[in-house]
Amino acid sequence: MTPFDELMSHQRETTALGQVAGRLGWDQETVMPRGSAEQRAEEMAAMETVLHARRTDPRVGEWLAALDEGALGAADRAQVRLIRREYERAVKVPGRLAAELARVTSRSQGVWAEARAADDFTAFASTLERVVALKREEGAALAAEGDVYDALLDDYEPGMKAAELDRMFGALRPRLVALREAVLGKPRAPELTGDFDEAAQMKLSRRIAQVFGYDMKRGRVDKAVHPFSSGSGNDVRITTRTAPDDPFNCVYSTIHEVGHGAYEQGIDQAYLLTPVGQGVSMGVHESQSRIYENQLGRSRAFTAWLFGEMADAFGNLGVADADAFYAAANRVHPGYIRTESDEVQYNLHILMRYDLERALIGRSLEVADLEEAWNTRFEADFGTRVDRPSNGVLQDVHWSVGLFGYFPTYTLGNVYAGCLHKALRAAVPDLDATLAAGETAPATEWLRERLQRHGGLRPPRDTVREACGFEPGEGPLLDYLEAKFGALYGL
Amino acid sequence: MTPFDELMSHQRETTALGQVAGRLGWDQETVMPRGSAEQRAEEMAAMETVLHARRTDPRVGEWLAALDEGALGAADRAQVRLIRREYERAVKVPGRLAAELARVTSRSQGVWAEARAADDFTAFASTLERVVALKREEGAALAAEGDVYDALLDDYEPGMKAAELDRMFGALRPRLVALREAVLGKPRAPELTGDFDEAAQMKLSRRIAQVFGYDMKRGRVDKAVHPFSSGSGNDVRITTRTAPDDPFNCVYSTIHEVGHGAYEQGIDQAYLLTPVGQGVSMGVHESQSRIYENQLGRSRAFTAWLFGEMADAFGNLGVADADAFYAAANRVHPGYIRTESDEVQYNLHILMRYDLERALIGRSLEVADLEEAWNTRFEADFGTRVDRPSNGVLQDVHWSVGLFGYFPTYTLGNVYAGCLHKALRAAVPDLDATLAAGETAPATEWLRERLQRHGGLRPPRDTVREACGFEPGEGPLLDYLEAKFGALYGL
Repeated sequence: MTPFDELMSHQRETTALGQVAGRLGWDQETVMPRGSAEQRAEEMAAMETVLHARRTDPRVGEWLAALDEGALGAADRAQVRLIRREYERAVKVPGRLAAELARVTSRSQGVWAEARAADDFTAFASTLERVVALKREEGAALAAEGDVYDALLDDYEPGMKAAELDRMFGALRPRLVALREAVLGKPRAPELTGDFDEAAQMKLSRRIAQVFGYDMKRGRVDKAVHPFSSGSGNDVRITTRTAPDDPFNCVYSTIHEVGHGAYEQGIDQAYLLTPVGQGVSMGVHESQSRIYENQLGRSRAFTAWLFGEMADAFGNLGVADADAFYAAANRVHPGYIRTESDEVQYNLHILMRYDLERALIGRSLEVADLEEAWNTRFEADFGTRVDRPSNGVLQDVHWSVGLFGYFPTYTLGNVYAGCLHKALRAAVPDLDATLAAGETAPATEWLRERLQRHGGLRPPRDTVREACGFEPGEGPLLDYLEAKFGALYGL
Repeated sequence: MTPFDELMSHQRETTALGQVAGRLGWDQETVMPRGSAEQRAEEMAAMETVLHARRTDPRVGEWLAALDEGALGAADRAQVRLIRREYERAVKVPGRLAAELARVTSRSQGVWAEARAADDFTAFASTLERVVALKREEGAALAAEGDVYDALLDDYEPGMKAAELDRMFGALRPRLVALREAVLGKPRAPELTGDFDEAAQMKLSRRIAQVFGYDMKRGRVDKAVHPFSSGSGNDVRITTRTAPDDPFNCVYSTIHEVGHGAYEQGIDQAYLLTPVGQGVSMGVHESQSRIYENQLGRSRAFTAWLFGEMADAFGNLGVADADAFYAAANRVHPGYIRTESDEVQYNLHILMRYDLERALIGRSLEVADLEEAWNTRFEADFGTRVDRPSNGVLQDVHWSVGLFGYFPTYTLGNVYAGCLHKALRAAVPDLDATLAAGETAPATEWLRERLQRHGGLRPPRDTVREACGFEPGEGPLLDYLEAKFGALYGL
């Protein structure tokens, strides 16, 4: 075997083990007995120790040094690039720290969930302090001389820098704030009312997943408190949630996660269980979930079809016609919760979290002051005082499991989705006619062909640029939002 | 850290990884998408590679050599004994063979399932040949100069030898054959008839699991084609199945698996994620599942309570009274399927499989001749010709996943259950009064105190002897069966 073959054989096993660890996470969120949490933390830590040892195996460094990159094709060079990147990052983090992070974040999620249920931030604060301390330590180990937050961000969005996000978010903020104020100055859109049986919601959810091209033979749909997708290749699972009074929650959680899942399922099978065979970054991943959920799923055309399906499933929906249904699906209303937010306000939630987590990691904010900092910033951005921690600082799972540098990729994903949507509309001029018939294939196949099937072949930004045919930026998203909500609210 | 502490720390992580691998198995049988089988085989093989590397880690040998056994307490000496045993076995099996076995048996289960569905043994034969060849190779590596089948048996029942099974099974066979012929010469017992909603069966199943002391906070009950239990410590899952016309299938599958699950849940928490913290052998495990299912669950006293519960759940059961219900729960009838068999005939199914698999491993029988050998032996033992492979050689999953040496532990478990039942009746004279009230705690707590909580503290046979207070043998099981079915059938 050549050094490259040795490297890929080792990496294929590591990727398979990473899939196993990921499935433990799925299990924990969907089916694990409550009393198993402590034992599970030990199991996760043991898997993390194994993965860390494999990622930092000195033979990986030797194979990387010995292989002849010039003799490789483009896909294999991409494999080497991704393996080298992961190896160089992994050897910077001590095994003790990696295992401790896995152990602490497995347990801390339960502490967060209990604190959220009890609406008591102080019950979570000391645990979060430990997580933040470990992430600062990890970031410092990764950053060497560079910026600690950039080092953490790079885990989720390779190549991205806070400086670039600052520029992009700086351009987004004023136009989003202006749009939000204009929309909220108008009368509220209608809401659905009716009897939304939760089993019927799950049935509809599985049907819509398939309509968007999700392959149920290689996946499944379950319920979770906080919907997520999990896995790569041929075992890609998604979750959704049901709320008895809000069927859109289930429908759009599903479409969102289907975007993630279809991306993983859509990657060329030749890359199975390799680094190229995974979604390239969180931002690009989120571009898929968001374009499925919003630009396609919340379009006037698709909601016309969905209106009929939901009327069949639930009977009277409490809205007069497809126009009112479209308005309800795009209702903008004041609210505390990021995941219940709308296209207009969502990114403002993210911009706030981004600033707070940068301050936490940068030590200009401590956990003891986080709740107050959250509430103050929320009031400044959204005009209301947070009424309780579960509506504020305790609403998201991310920080409890150590995801610092992750939040901004949501807005980056929206920005990329805006670009992809612009390119898609140009490539498929009659898109609305198919969407109105509940036919998403022209859109999802364009995305699969232009972006999804390539997996990690190119760096994230290059992946989006190649798919769109132009340099990605925040302009198309802002133009889309202003046009859509301008028309919906008569601005 | 002392060498013992190093050893235990390493072992604890290995045990945690073993739990993860076990949970992958649970996932495969309950929730895995069908199209994930090939990828899952890679994942299982990767886990097996990791586990094999850890089990054969030369440091384990060094720690074992360096530790001061005389300074340890009884429980720690038991840990060392179990770790040494596993290490000495593991170093005999090449890593290549261990990984290949994991890969092949993960795939072969799917091939078996398809062949069973198609009723075509030839579709499975070449796969089974590969499994048998690998198991022969593994057995030879383990046996050194000894008997290859004994070496495989030792994996499931440490210390047991085929010669001892031959003696025990030789003593069982004539009395079981005589009992079977006598019972089948009498009129058949009644069967239940009625409307047995499958969701109501699962609801009843979860209730009965709890009645038998299964802790749902540390477990869960799902459906599987072939019921099993999985996991140790605080994540112990069981499965059952439902048949629309046979609610006893679900009820007694559940009670059986609860016996396994309660054993694992009942082991002292001080042994969590250690070798002592697992059921000590398959035979002892089966003694728990069988005493729960049969000596307790199918007793006249308990069935009186169950009759009322099932009448509440399903309405008219088609039997006149509790006596008829008791007879139905213990109905003896001709049939092809081991898992649908009864206490009288069950062990005859096992004795047949034991002889066939010994012959396969010992090379006196080849896979090409297995179907005919099965059918000939079945006709000799049960008086009927097998009508199709799914009723014959394809009915059990075991051989497809490489479980050779496993079948005899079922009958050994029945023998041990007979001994434990004799001791339990002596210790708890008013047992029937509590069982008739749906109260199993006097029985299950006696079993927990005398046997379950000790896990692997003592070797299997010693575990049963200590619990019973006498040397285990086949006599009590035979006496129990002859008394029970003699009375039921008026012999």
